[in-house]
Formats: sequence, structure tokens, C-alpha cells
Amino acid sequence: MKELPHGLMQERPLQISSLLTHAAAFSPQRQVVSKTPSGIERYGYREAEERARRWAIGLSRLGVRAGDRVASLAWNTHRHFELFYAVPGIGAILHTLNPRLWEEQLVYILNHAEDRVLCFDPDLIDLVERLAPQISSVEHFVVLASRDAMPESASLTLNCAEDLLADADFSWPTFDERVAAILCYTSGTTGMPKGVLCSHRSTVLHALYAQSAVAFGLTPMESVLLVVPMFHAYGWSLPYVCAIAGAKLVLPGAAPDAQTIVDLIHQEGVSLATGVPTVWTGVFDNLDQTNRNLGPLKRALIGGSAMPPAMSRRLREQYGVEPVTGWGMTELSPLGSFTCATPEVNAMNGEARDAALYGRAGRVLYPLEVKVVLADGTRAPADGATSGDIWVRGPCVASGYYRGEGGDMLDADGWFPTGDVGVLDEFGAIAITDRVKDLIKSGGEWISSADIEKAALDCPGVAQAAAISARHEKWQERPLLLVVASRNVKPTREGIMAAMQAKLAKWQLPDDIVFIEALPLTATGKIDKKVLRNRFGDHLMNNKGGEEVLREDARQ
Amino acid sequence: MKELPHGLMQERPLQISSLLTHAAAFSPQRQVVSKTPSGIERYGYREAEERARRWAIGLSRLGVRAGDRVASLAWNTHRHFELFYAVPGIGAILHTLNPRLWEEQLVYILNHAEDRVLCFDPDLIDLVERLAPQISSVEHFVVLASRDAMPESASLTLNCAEDLLADADFSWPTFDERVAAILCYTSGTTGMPKGVLCSHRSTVLHALYAQSAVAFGLTPMESVLLVVPMFHAYGWSLPYVCAIAGAKLVLPGAAPDAQTIVDLIHQEGVSLATGVPTVWTGVFDNLDQTNRNLGPLKRALIGGSAMPPAMSRRLREQYGVEPVTGWGMTELSPLGSFTCATPEVNAMNGEARDAALYGRAGRVLYPLEVKVVLADGTRAPADGATSGDIWVRGPCVASGYYRGEGGDMLDADGWFPTGDVGVLDEFGAIAITDRVKDLIKSGGEWISSADIEKAALDCPGVAQAAAISARHEKWQERPLLLVVASRNVKPTREGIMAAMQAKLAKWQLPDDIVFIEALPLTATGKIDKKVLRNRFGDHLMNNKGGEEVLREDARQ
Repeated sequence: MKELPHGLMQERPLQISSLLTHAAAFSPQRQVVSKTPSGIERYGYREAEERARRWAIGLSRLGVRAGDRVASLAWNTHRHFELFYAVPGIGAILHTLNPRLWEEQLVYILNHAEDRVLCFDPDLIDLVERLAPQISSVEHFVVLASRDAMPESASLTLNCAEDLLADADFSWPTFDERVAAILCYTSGTTGMPKGVLCSHRSTVLHALYAQSAVAFGLTPMESVLLVVPMFHAYGWSLPYVCAIAGAKLVLPGAAPDAQTIVDLIHQEGVSLATGVPTVWTGVFDNLDQTNRNLGPLKRALIGGSAMPPAMSRRLREQYGVEPVTGWGMTELSPLGSFTCATPEVNAMNGEARDAALYGRAGRVLYPLEVKVVLADGTRAPADGATSGDIWVRGPCVASGYYRGEGGDMLDADGWFPTGDVGVLDEFGAIAITDRVKDLIKSGGEWISSADIEKAALDCPGVAQAAAISARHEKWQERPLLLVVASRNVKPTREGIMAAMQAKLAKWQLPDDIVFIEALPLTATGKIDKKVLRNRFGDHLMNNKGGEEVLREDARQ
Repeated sequence: MKELPHGLMQERPLQISSLLTHAAAFSPQRQVVSKTPSGIERYGYREAEERARRWAIGLSRLGVRAGDRVASLAWNTHRHFELFYAVPGIGAILHTLNPRLWEEQLVYILNHAEDRVLCFDPDLIDLVERLAPQISSVEHFVVLASRDAMPESASLTLNCAEDLLADADFSWPTFDERVAAILCYTSGTTGMPKGVLCSHRSTVLHALYAQSAVAFGLTPMESVLLVVPMFHAYGWSLPYVCAIAGAKLVLPGAAPDAQTIVDLIHQEGVSLATGVPTVWTGVFDNLDQTNRNLGPLKRALIGGSAMPPAMSRRLREQYGVEPVTGWGMTELSPLGSFTCATPEVNAMNGEARDAALYGRAGRVLYPLEVKVVLADGTRAPADGATSGDIWVRGPCVASGYYRGEGGDMLDADGWFPTGDVGVLDEFGAIAITDRVKDLIKSGGEWISSADIEKAALDCPGVAQAAAISARHEKWQERPLLLVVASRNVKPTREGIMAAMQAKLAKWQLPDDIVFIEALPLTATGKIDKKVLRNRFGDHLMNNKGGEEVLREDARQ
């Protein structure tokens, strides 16, 4: 179609600064609370917006121009929150860095992004001093601290954030909503991390749909504890969603322990807390030790990986807290789905309802388009059982990685292959059954590592489990199970195998089980299967225990 | 700023068709329920989307091209719902018409919009036959009925909607999100109605923010009864919001009476019902007569004008239903604010809380910018007391009327003067105190007609009240109060005056009170003050009862 008549509506761009000016104007009392080494700091959204404007001037005086990259190497604090608005607010690009990455990766990323300014928390001074000689583009180092908390440095000239904050006589500029706003690198299976570059448009649209009642659905009555790091997929966009909603935002500072999390929940009236499963495991231990409960908490968002059923049950039954989860990735801005009941699901009996509601990664969120594609290119039926590759498309989905790394990431129709394998059910929910790269291809048949892990975790004495693909003479690949035993009950190889036989077909059973002390984790807290494959990939080449069973069953 | 780097996100336009394809894919079981003369019709969103696609082909075969206007003169039914998607879906413009307008206005609007197709409900055949000879652009008349419910017409060739519906082998086209989508004329104080032309972008953005938990906040667990007509400000956008949320949508057909409304609430598990205050008055009468309650209803949305306190109280105390309200206008797509509690408001004592929560028009919704401007051009403080002119700006606000009617509607900075007068409070809520045109300017002082009406409605025996500006020899304008007495208690002029003296300053009291049988209503159910001013505007020129009191007080 050619030139169609346009609507007669205002051409106002969707800009990140407008989220905070809205909160400042209409939710001035609602607070941003920040735990720092010197104690709790708190202010209302009006002061937050004023400080963001003072940052904007300060950064400009430092020489930051629209289009420049400003890196942050920081935990969840109010100063980091201010950068989420100040940097994109002047048309520059906030580049959030994960302090837990390998230093080699941090050096690569800083050089690749050509960051001109590096803002960092004072406790990371040693890391920054080690990085500095290897990074060429950074001209200014800004410490996110008050003057009396500034660290010493023999090698670097440090700017104190509070000295940078100038007067607030400044108005947020207006520009095209497609202008770049935030850069966040994401680790792939192979090679160095790749950068996802969000625009103002995608960030604001995402905040709007994440604030839908079928997702975060926040109101001014809520208090949100952001345990998930703000450098991890934009802190699941909550620094923006809370501003739209006028919800209180509680930032727990550097690497909060379980005690801090439970204290903040009680002290700040937290109604929604977010974290990966290991965070919640730590919280449970703390509650057991202290005989406390979760007080005002209403919802626990468990993200980053699948929600363990026992964790979901305990939250509901012992603490009266509703567990919610979602699926997403940096490339999706990041949310793709969110737990939400439907009348059909609620009408099911107990266990079936739990599986349909808590056993999935949530319902797909508009405006994300999602399709599950089978090996033959057709779409999988929405039956909750047939798994396929998950493809997505939408205005908040990346179109390519920074500086073209990885080549074209979309197909001809604009779909992005997420690398996740999953199912879609008839109620609009998806479940992630595996990563494409974690599937095990045994003699032409696919075996899901997630299925094996789920069966293993139900065995008494299994604290953690990881299934990987190990090379095999006859079947090319066969599953190998790595288990971390619990402290109390010591499981045996035979006991676990016997228990798993009730849940898996014989050909899906792992060929062997290896007990290890701890599972290696990635910088974002997920099990690092790359490390496991490197270490145990040849384990079955010297060990053929499972072969007889296999041969028998593979004929089916 | 010049050429800034763009984010690397997909260029997917926000299109209305995507709302329905989302619901079809992920909420296929959730229903659209429609009351027609022959009974209840119901289908899931998948079938709704399929029928919209069949409409799209049917309209194309009828000759409708992108950019063409297709008018609807219809009540709330599933076929009207389908047009909300099918017409914009092919790049054409849906023009919703209010069947209750004066015929002269309908003729003007149809000719002004140059509609090529007119789709109408079968009960409106007589009206359409009268209009037809006066409208030149309409080539096709489509009746929104099944074949067996088709009316007869001696003068017109009628198409049956169900005959138009072709096969569904069609994909929604992709085009610029700024393309025009819906045209809705709005009545002003003077002259003929003017057209507001929404784009796909503004409609989808509005649906996203209206679905925020601080506004409609729907989930698939909800069932929404749309009593507000779909021709009135896009049915408050609920035909779109329900699709995003996967909520059930219940359409009550032509002019639903209170009995129908209460029946549908019970039969369809309605959790949210929408209507203007008079709808709820009728519902209360019906409940009194039948001794029923409101069963599954959780929220009652009272829109179109201020929520009467007695109505709000009765909903809460007698029926356990939470009353909510909002403020908006066609030019805002239409929602500008929505009732939402904050911790500060909830902490107030009973009456103060009620006033802050239910006595306002709700909190301002992102991304709408709102400012309240005093006569000297400065902004009114957000103190809940200082009233001024309400100006708005945002991506879902009109930039001008169709075909340039009324000239420039924005100031140099893009702000639109809404014509409403109101206050903003410290909790982000606004209250509309008057329309600019309904203010009474007495000897240089402004008097709010809304304040007088509120005081009058608290007097025993006053069923309805309207204050207007009447010409006055000495003070140019003075307030005149029109009262409809209740059936039971007969009030007197002196009794009302005495009661009002406790609530108003002497100079704010009306000069006279006139009892009338009924107040004239506009086509959208609001009190028609234009008619009252025409009839009673000279009333005080022969009646100077209040003058002595006035002279005394105006010296202050």
C-alpha cells in the first residue's frame, strides 16, 4: 500500500525521561529506597528526577555527548537508578556491565563498546584499577559514592558522583524515539558476549506492557524489592515500571545476603520481591534459622530459570506468598511471558492446576509474537506437549547485535530464533523445556536435559542436578548426569537411577551419574554447562555402563 | 540534536490487528458474548479474529480501499466489535456514529466524513432510510444482522453482513503505525460536532496504558460488561483492552435496560461493568424491586460525569462493589485518569479517604502529560484546592480535528486546552470542577456550577440539579438553579436556599431556583446546558430576587 492518510494525533516521542517526570509530577511521595554501606538512603520520585537532571548536566560538563556510551559497573543503588534515566535522557547510551564477568570479557566489552565514561561502585575499585590499563576509550572514571566514601587510587583520577551533580536548571531534550538508549551484553554459547542495543521506543513500550495487570501489574500500593541486578537484562525493567506505576522501589545494594533481603522485606513493607531461585533458597535457610516469616510479601518473582516446584509450594503453603515467574532474555527487552491464571486453569484440580500455572513460564505478553516451530518448519500445536524451537518477533525484540556481531539474527520475515526449546499450551502459556544447545542428540533422537534434571531433583538426596551431552561411540551423544548430594541424605547412583525410571523412558535415562562437590555457575548465576561439557564430555568414552539398556530400547 | 545512533530493535509497527491476533493465539477460549434480538451469541477470540478477517475480505470486495471511511451506526454487539478490527485492519477508517444524535447532525457528519459504506443495526432501518436521501457519499448499506433478521426496505438496497463474510484466507497487511484508524465526532459547545481521527499507534498505545494495573488492569479472570456505547469515545477502548488481557467481553446489545444489565452480570460472571451514573441509578431501582444483589461484580466503572457520593457509598456498603471512575474525552483516546489508591490516601480517616479516592476523577495515567494553569499563566500548585484550566499533551492526544475544523487546537508547545477546569492533588489525582463554558462569571468573579449542583443535590427532595449562567443587568451573569424534585419529598425554593447556605458563600448562591419536570440530556446522556441556557438564559432579567444579598457580598 502506498501513502495512506495518517491519524491526527500528536507526534510525541516515547522517551525514557518521560517515565521519571511522570513519577515526579504524580507520585512525588512514593520512594526510591537504597541500601548503601553507610545505611539506608531514601527519597521521593520528585527528588529522584531532580538528581537525574543534575546528573545530566554533570555528565554533559564531563564531555558526554548524545550517542556516547557511558558504562556502569554497579550494584542496585539509587545512583545506578539515576543513571538509568540521566544517561539516556541526554541521548547518550547507558552500558550496564556485570562485575562478575571474567575480567577478560569485561575488557573485551568495554573496548568493543568504546565507553567514554565508566561509573562504578566504590567496592569495585580494585577491579577497575586492573581493567583500566587494558581499556583505551574510557576518559573519565566516576565513583558512585558520596565524598566521604571515596576510595583511594594510586593509578586513576577519580571523579566523585556527588561533585558532578550540578544545578538542576535543565529540561530533558526531545528527540526521535528510535534513538539508542541502553546497551547490555549477553553471553552466548560460544565466543565473546554480544551487545543488545535498546531504543527509547522499545524501552518505554516494554515498560508499558510489563506494567500490564497480566505481568508486573504494579500500583502505588506496592513496594518492590529488586534483588535481580540492574545490570542483568535492565533489572527486568523494574526501574522503569515502578516509575509508571508510582510504586516504591527498594534497592538492596551490593550483593545482598538473605538476612538483608528478609530485613528489607519487613522494614520496607515489600509486597513483590524478585530473584533467581538460589536467592530464594538462601531466604528459606534464613527463615528457618531465624523463625521469621515473609511478613508483608505478597508475590515472589522467581526468574532467570525454571521455578522449582518445591520452592513454589513452600512459598504458597508455608508463607502465603504467590510465586510468579516469567520467561525472557536481554534480546526481548527482556520480558516475553508472565505467570497469570485463567478461569480454565483455575478450574483444574490441585496438581493439574499447579502444573499449568506454576509449572510454566507464564502467558505470552502482547505485543510479543511467539511461535513454536517443529523440525519440519511447521508450527507446533498449542497442546502443552509438543516442543519445538521458540521464535519471536515484535517492536521490543532486537534486530541485530551491536556492531553487527553474529551476523543477521533474524530470518527473512523478521523472526528471531531464541535458542530456547519449549511448548505452548491452549491457555496461552509457554514452558521452556530446554536450550537448543543443551539438548542431547542420541542416535537421532532428541533428549531433553531439563527433563532428566527435573526427574533427578525429585530423588531424595539430590540437591542440584545437571544433565549434559557426553560423546558416545555408538550413539554419538548420550546423557550424563552430574549430581550435588544434599548434606543430610547421601544418595546412591543405583537409587537415583531406580527413582528416575518411574519418570523417564529407558532411552532417556542418563548413561552414568557422577557426584561432584558443586556445579560451576555463569556470571549470571546459571549452571555453566560449557564448563561441565569441557570437563565431562569424554566421560562415557571410557564407561559404557548404560549401553545394554540403550541398545534394547532404541529399537522402539 | 542531529542524527543520533538508533537502537537495534525491530521496526514492527503498532497495529490494531495485532491486538486481536494476540487474543486469538493466546486466549482462544476467552469469549466475546453478544446479546442480540434472537438471544445470546458467543464465541472465543480465535473465532472473533477469523470473522474479522472474513469481514476484511468482504469489505474489500465491496470496494473499500485503505483510507476509505466506513461508518457504523450500531449498538454494542459482536458484529460491531468485529468492525473495530476489520475496518482499521485493512487500512480503512472506522467512523463510529451515535444513533441518538439529531438527524441534522448525523447528516452533517456523514457528509463531512464522506463515508463510503454505512453499517447499521437492523432496528435503525427507519433512521437510515430518512438519512439516506440526504447523504451523498454512501454507496453501500450493510445491515449488522443474520439473513433471517434482515429488515425490509423499499428505498434502499441492503447488504446482509453475514453474506459479505467471505472465506478467511487473508493475512492482515502491515503498514505505518501512524495511519488513520478510527474517526469519532465529538460535540462541542457551539457549532457542529468535530471529528477526532485516531491512528493505529495512538489506539494501541492507549490500549496498553489503559491495561495498566493503575487503570482497567484486566486479566483473563475478568468478565467485562460494556454498557457504555462503543460509539462513545471508542467504548472507552475496552474492545481493545480486553483483547490484550484475554478478558471476557460482554456486549449487551441495543439500549440495555437495568434488568438486562443485572441479568448479564449474574449470567456471565461479570466482574467489571461500565456505565454513566444514570445507568447505575436504574440498576439500583431494579435491585430494589427484585431484591437481588450484584453477585459476581467486583468493580463498577462510573464514567462520563462525576461519581455521585451516594452512589459510590451504596455500591461499597450495600453490594461490596468497588466504585471506580476516570476522566477523559474523545480527544484523549479517551482515558486521562483512573481511580487508584495510594498508601497516603489509604492512611486517611474514613471521610477524608473517601473524598480523596472516590471524590476525584482518578490519578493521571502515563504517558499523558497534564498541567493545571491559572489565569496568569502559571501552574496551579498540586494542593487539591487551587483550580485552573486543564491542558494535556501526549502521543494519544489529538493534534487537530478532521479536515481542520476549529483551526489550530494546540498551543505553540503542543498543549491542548481540554476546556475542563479542575484541581490536581498531591497524590497525583485530578478532580474536574467544571467545564470552562459552564463557569458563571458574576461581576468579575468565577462561580462553579458544579459546586452549586453538589450543594443542591445534598438537599432533601432534590433528585437532579443543574446550575447555569443567566444574564443579569448588574452582574452580567448570575447563577440560576434548575431542580427536578424527587417523587417522595417535595422541596421548596426557601428550603433549598437555606440548606445551600451552609455549603456556599452568599455570592455563590443562585439568584433563583426553578422547578422543572426533567432535565434535557445530550445524545451521550449528559445534561444539555445549551438547551437550558437557551430556555432560561433571560429568566433573571425579569426577576431580581437575589440582588440585595448579592450587592452586599460582592464587595468582599
